[in-house]
Formats: sequence, C-alpha cells, structure tokens
Amino acid sequence: MRRQKAIILLSGGIDSCVTAAIANENHQLCCLHINYGQITSTREEKAFNEITKFFNVKNKLSANLRIDYLKKIGGSSLTNKNLKVPENSQNSIPNTYVPFRNANLLAIAVSWAEVIDAKKIFIGAMEEDSSGYPDCRESFFKAYNQMIQLGTKFTTKISIETPILHKSKAEVVKIGLKLKAPLHLTWSCYQNSEIACGVCESCKLRIKAFQNAGLKDSIPYKIPIKWK
Amino acid sequence: MRRQKAIILLSGGIDSCVTAAIANENHQLCCLHINYGQITSTREEKAFNEITKFFNVKNKLSANLRIDYLKKIGGSSLTNKNLKVPENSQNSIPNTYVPFRNANLLAIAVSWAEVIDAKKIFIGAMEEDSSGYPDCRESFFKAYNQMIQLGTKFTTKISIETPILHKSKAEVVKIGLKLKAPLHLTWSCYQNSEIACGVCESCKLRIKAFQNAGLKDSIPYKIPIKWK
Repeated sequence: MRRQKAIILLSGGIDSCVTAAIANENHQLCCLHINYGQITSTREEKAFNEITKFFNVKNKLSANLRIDYLKKIGGSSLTNKNLKVPENSQNSIPNTYVPFRNANLLAIAVSWAEVIDAKKIFIGAMEEDSSGYPDCRESFFKAYNQMIQLGTKFTTKISIETPILHKSKAEVVKIGLKLKAPLHLTWSCYQNSEIACGVCESCKLRIKAFQNAGLKDSIPYKIPIKWK
Repeated sequence: MRRQKAIILLSGGIDSCVTAAIANENHQLCCLHINYGQITSTREEKAFNEITKFFNVKNKLSANLRIDYLKKIGGSSLTNKNLKVPENSQNSIPNTYVPFRNANLLAIAVSWAEVIDAKKIFIGAMEEDSSGYPDCRESFFKAYNQMIQLGTKFTTKISIETPILHKSKAEVVKIGLKLKAPLHLTWSCYQNSEIACGVCESCKLRIKAFQNAGLKDSIPYKIPIKWK
C-alpha cells in the first residue's frame, strides 16, 4: 500500500530530526526547510540536506524559498546580529523568540500540503524546552488546526501533528536513538559554525538532554563536555 | 494625541485601497505589500507605491520581501502561467485561488505588528466577491484571531480587522469615493499590463461594481465599457 504523504518541518535540529523519524514510521516524508534569514542558515541547510539524504526523501522544498522578511522585521537575536543571543534564559521570553515564526512556517507548509495533497504536517515543537515561546504551546496548535479547517478548501483535511510536544529533550534523544534517527547529522548551536560552541542556550539544552538520557552526543564541541 | 499604528495589507486593488482609507480615519497607516510571485506583481507594486504616496505613509514594508514560495508551490493560475485565468467563475473554487494565501500574508503582518507594536491589522477581504475562497470568510478570520492570541507574547494584543467583509463591491466603491480613496491609482486586472483588459474575472467584478454604484471607473480599459 502506498504511504500517505506527510510534510515535515525540518530545521536540521534534533527535535525536527526525531519528528521526521517518527513520521517516517507510517508516512512518505515530504521535507520543508525554511531559510528565514536566521544567522545559522547555511549550517542548518547543510544539516537539512544530510538528513533528507539519510531518509532518502524525494519530495523536498528548501533553500531557495527564503522568507527573509522575518529578518527584515527583526525583533529576535536569531535574525538580528546586533542583538546578543543570551547564554542563560530568564523566566521571560528570551530575545531568540522570532515573532510568530511557527505561524509563518506552518502557513507555508499548509499551502504546500494543499497542493501536493498531504494530510499531515509534522512539527517538532516542544512545550518544555521552548523557553516560553507562545507559538510552541498545545493551545496554539489546536487553534491553528481550527484555522486551517476554515481557511482551506472544504475538501481539504490537513492537520498539524506534534508528536514530541510533551516530551522532555532527554526523551526525544532516546526516541531518536530507538528509531535510529541520524542525530549525528543534526545542528542545534545558535552559531553558524562547523563545530558547536557548547555554551549557547541551545547547545546547553542539547548537552543536558544527552546527559539526562545517560548518553554521549556524537557531534564535536569547542569546549570539553563531561558525558556520563 | 498620537494615533495608534495599524498595519494594512495593501495589494494595490480597490478593496485594500478602500480599507486603507477606512483605517486612515483613526490610525497611523503602516502598509504591507507582498510580492508572492503573482503574475501581476510589478503592476501591483506600482499601485502600492502610488497609493502609499497618496496617503503619505512613512511605515512601509514592501517589494523586497518576496514570499515566492507560493509561486514555487503553484496550484493557482495567479502564480502559474501554465494555468489559464478563467474568464467566468463556476460555483466551485476557481483556479485563481492561491492555497492558504491569506493565512500566509496575515502571518507576516502579525510578525511585523508584534515588532512595531501595531494593535490592528486591516485586510480588505470580502465574502461576497471572494469567488468562494475559504480564507475570505468571517469564520476563518475569527479562528485566525484566536490563533494570534495563543501564538504571540502574552502582552501582545493584535486583532485582524475586516471592515468591508460583508459589503458588496458596489458599496466598497461608494465608500471609497466618500472617503476620497485614490481609486484611480488601484489595479484589479489579472494581467500584468498598463491598461486593464476588461474581460478577466477581476476586471468584470470591478466594472460591475462601478456600474451598480451608478459611477464611472476612471482607469482606462482595452475594450469599450458602457457606463451608466
């Protein structure tokens, strides 16, 4: 039986890579990578290309579809070099929050889904590790699904799937290993470099996740990391 | 008193021009024009530039922020030259429907609104003249507003405003004239030309609107039009 198409928002990080591995269990992967002017775009694109190659993905939409208006609009240290990426997050929303990013990315995915007749869109959002980003919460995705039903053709049935929304990052790493997801090809660091810095908020979350899972991360870091 | 900022999605057509005139009554206009690869993009951009000049708009976001992924994705005769723009619409959704376009455009507007602290986003959508486009219905905008509340910072209060949603196009033309909106600068035709064709679906709707309003359209047409 032919597998149904599913679109995966694949940034190139651990979360989206594991989400792709989950979707891959029962669907034909169609991978969407979006360069929205983020500082790490070239490194993320490399990860995207390597991960899609690993999964042997035929249906890709990437690279050239830049939505660099998010960079023009600014308001986030992920797209504005003049704002410093914080090494520690406070309780408030950190300046790595890209205003309404997920709503933008999902809108692109829905447009594509409606054209290629994919019924599901997988996104690797996680409430716990989302630093308080409002567009990573379950209530947001529920409202988004409602909006999709009302904003697409009556015959279109598309839903957003968030399989790791309530997992911890350590659990996500474990699931990834179980499903043989190519975690060694992923990129999490907020720096656009070949070797992860090991000190930014995103590196810290990643390292802690592997430590909590009792595992060793196979990517290299600029600083020595203690693995259990 | 300083007027509150409002973002206007300004395509360059009659509907968005009149919507801008309505918003201009009580707000400081911030105009957003989006080139999403539509065939008429250069002509629409010209209309956008002339209309924002007319309203003396300082805060503009336009032209360079191309979201041409909608063109890449295809599925609409407005972005794909190989699909013929229909001269008559049937009861079904015509192929000028750009999948989920409004959701994409509004997502950009919300990102911008959150950064510049605009509380309202005006869009000139109309249920009646929308040829059955699902993303032009009131229920869609209600769901979108719900989704915005859940997907932005807790302190952010942004709402989509649709002042002409339930108007007929003839009423919109009348409102435009009353508010002295620059209808002579607008562009509606589906062709990317200097003179409107007068036969496409969009020209027909426009001409009929002026005729129903008992008025003469001041833009030139390639074919002779009977005005009352």
